[in-house]
Amino acid sequence: MKEIEIVFLGGGTAFYEVFEIIRRINIVEKKYKIISILDDNIELHGKQLNGILIAGNLEKVKEYPNAKFVFGIGSMKTRLIRKKIMAKLGIELSRFESIIHPQTYIDSSAKIQPGCIIHPGVCIGNDVVVEHFVVIAVNSAIGPYTYISSFAMITSLVVILSNAKIGKSVFVGASSCITEGVEVGDGAMIGAGTIISRNVPNGTFFLGNPARMINKFEIPKDL
Amino acid sequence: MKEIEIVFLGGGTAFYEVFEIIRRINIVEKKYKIISILDDNIELHGKQLNGILIAGNLEKVKEYPNAKFVFGIGSMKTRLIRKKIMAKLGIELSRFESIIHPQTYIDSSAKIQPGCIIHPGVCIGNDVVVEHFVVIAVNSAIGPYTYISSFAMITSLVVILSNAKIGKSVFVGASSCITEGVEVGDGAMIGAGTIISRNVPNGTFFLGNPARMINKFEIPKDL
Amino acid sequence: MKEIEIVFLGGGTAFYEVFEIIRRINIVEKKYKIISILDDNIELHGKQLNGILIAGNLEKVKEYPNAKFVFGIGSMKTRLIRKKIMAKLGIELSRFESIIHPQTYIDSSAKIQPGCIIHPGVCIGNDVVVEHFVVIAVNSAIGPYTYISSFAMITSLVVILSNAKIGKSVFVGASSCITEGVEVGDGAMIGAGTIISRNVPNGTFFLGNPARMINKFEIPKDL
Repeated sequence: MKEIEIVFLGGGTAFYEVFEIIRRINIVEKKYKIISILDDNIELHGKQLNGILIAGNLEKVKEYPNAKFVFGIGSMKTRLIRKKIMAKLGIELSRFESIIHPQTYIDSSAKIQPGCIIHPGVCIGNDVVVEHFVVIAVNSAIGPYTYISSFAMITSLVVILSNAKIGKSVFVGASSCITEGVEVGDGAMIGAGTIISRNVPNGTFFLGNPARMINKFEIPKDL
Repeated sequence: MKEIEIVFLGGGTAFYEVFEIIRRINIVEKKYKIISILDDNIELHGKQLNGILIAGNLEKVKEYPNAKFVFGIGSMKTRLIRKKIMAKLGIELSRFESIIHPQTYIDSSAKIQPGCIIHPGVCIGNDVVVEHFVVIAVNSAIGPYTYISSFAMITSLVVILSNAKIGKSVFVGASSCITEGVEVGDGAMIGAGTIISRNVPNGTFFLGNPARMINKFEIPKDL
Repeated sequence: MKEIEIVFLGGGTAFYEVFEIIRRINIVEKKYKIISILDDNIELHGKQLNGILIAGNLEKVKEYPNAKFVFGIGSMKTRLIRKKIMAKLGIELSRFESIIHPQTYIDSSAKIQPGCIIHPGVCIGNDVVVEHFVVIAVNSAIGPYTYISSFAMITSLVVILSNAKIGKSVFVGASSCITEGVEVGDGAMIGAGTIISRNVPNGTFFLGNPARMINKFEIPKDL
């Protein structure tokens, strides 16, 4: 089978992570070929990451009519504008590839929508839904029947137990735990090492064990 | 070699987890075949999970004289009656299979008794003993010389350090840590994200970092 | 290719862990052969661990001019003298082997110096530096651009986020998290389940979530 050509959106650390995941995938079956990186930071243009050229701004996506895209933009600080960046590009969802490390343990009934990045050691239980553009970092575990909304970022060694609902563009810090049936509202931020056992409202920052609300903040209407 | 025929006891989420583990085991060597599920909830009878029929009540175990059994009953709430359910079935221990994911890291000196379920990413150190009907969930680590008593449930991303002793039917919540040499008494419950650095008496619930006793409760005499 | 002959320094638990890692490495390619164990505890001399003889004191290293060494000495309590023990042996760094479990996820730009032990499930991001004689235990994650100094011991299920700096002979307890950009000073000790979000001075013990300084202690000048 012909390799799928990938244009990577974002010239940051996520590139290296995805490069490494693709390297592992390709050992078994030569599935992907990263052909280009795009980033709006013009200082990066012309540079290379692992031998792949950062070829220009994100709007250059039009120049790759046959490629698939991987969305590698976003961090704790920029997570709330990830959707806006995506929307501006005007690429349909089906052109995004979800990049899933082979050493993951994903129940066959779980649904992973396009544009996700799933790191090694991740376990995803039965009937989980992971919407588009979600990142789940290394060694995290998502319990059965849990719903993770679009653009959420679940970092390393996080546990989300069963029947939980994670809102849009939520950030869950490392070593945190979200217990059974809890709802975390859109745009919320959960700090590292936080144990969430009650619902978290939209646009709030929770931290600690037990978790306390540290502050509230404005979130975009269209998250 | 002929496949081992498995009758799965319990029609809940554990079935999907074990199904997935067996699927991985069978990729390397076709070892197990799940032929039936039994559960005392009559509303489930006649339904299928991943194509396997829930064929009737647990007492139907007698109808499978040549099969092995996997015990997939129990949760945080029902953990204290797991032994009673088992005892009523009157099946000898040797007819239970321990289902161990291939991506685990178990020292060859560790002893895993029959009826356990060990999830991917689990690490078990030298000279550990894991008694029968213990569950150890994804990415948890059990240090050397630690003893885990029967029917204990160790959930996801738990660390139990060396020389610890975990009592019968103990439940250890996700993202918890039990430090060196600590004894956790029979039937105790450790909440999510709890750091245990002192002994925990029988029939108590500990929670938090640092851990505090939240309450005491009656435990069955014959745990 | 001829196997690399290994003399293991230390007759404790680390031996079993390294034995297991080497067993896994050798399944794919017969790379290592442990030929001897040395330990200064004379009560161990003549005993065997997994069939390998504990042949005498550490000073016997001279008797193995063609072997490589693995340094398996040290624990939370003895971590501050690990360097002194090493220095006394007078073996050059290049004769130490780093033993890395195959089920690890290490970015190709990360630098692992000689003498390290890296357990299964460990993830190491881009541009990380791990100096000599560092141990990283099971399922821990080290973020990009982080620097881990010599003789540090990172235990199980630890997360160290990006751009952090871990000092010499630091001990990081299980289930801990060290957040972005934090510096942990030489010889410091981080207790189990601790969340570090500010710098930690040399020779201090931090514990808890949020972390508090529990005490200070003298550290050797030449750590």
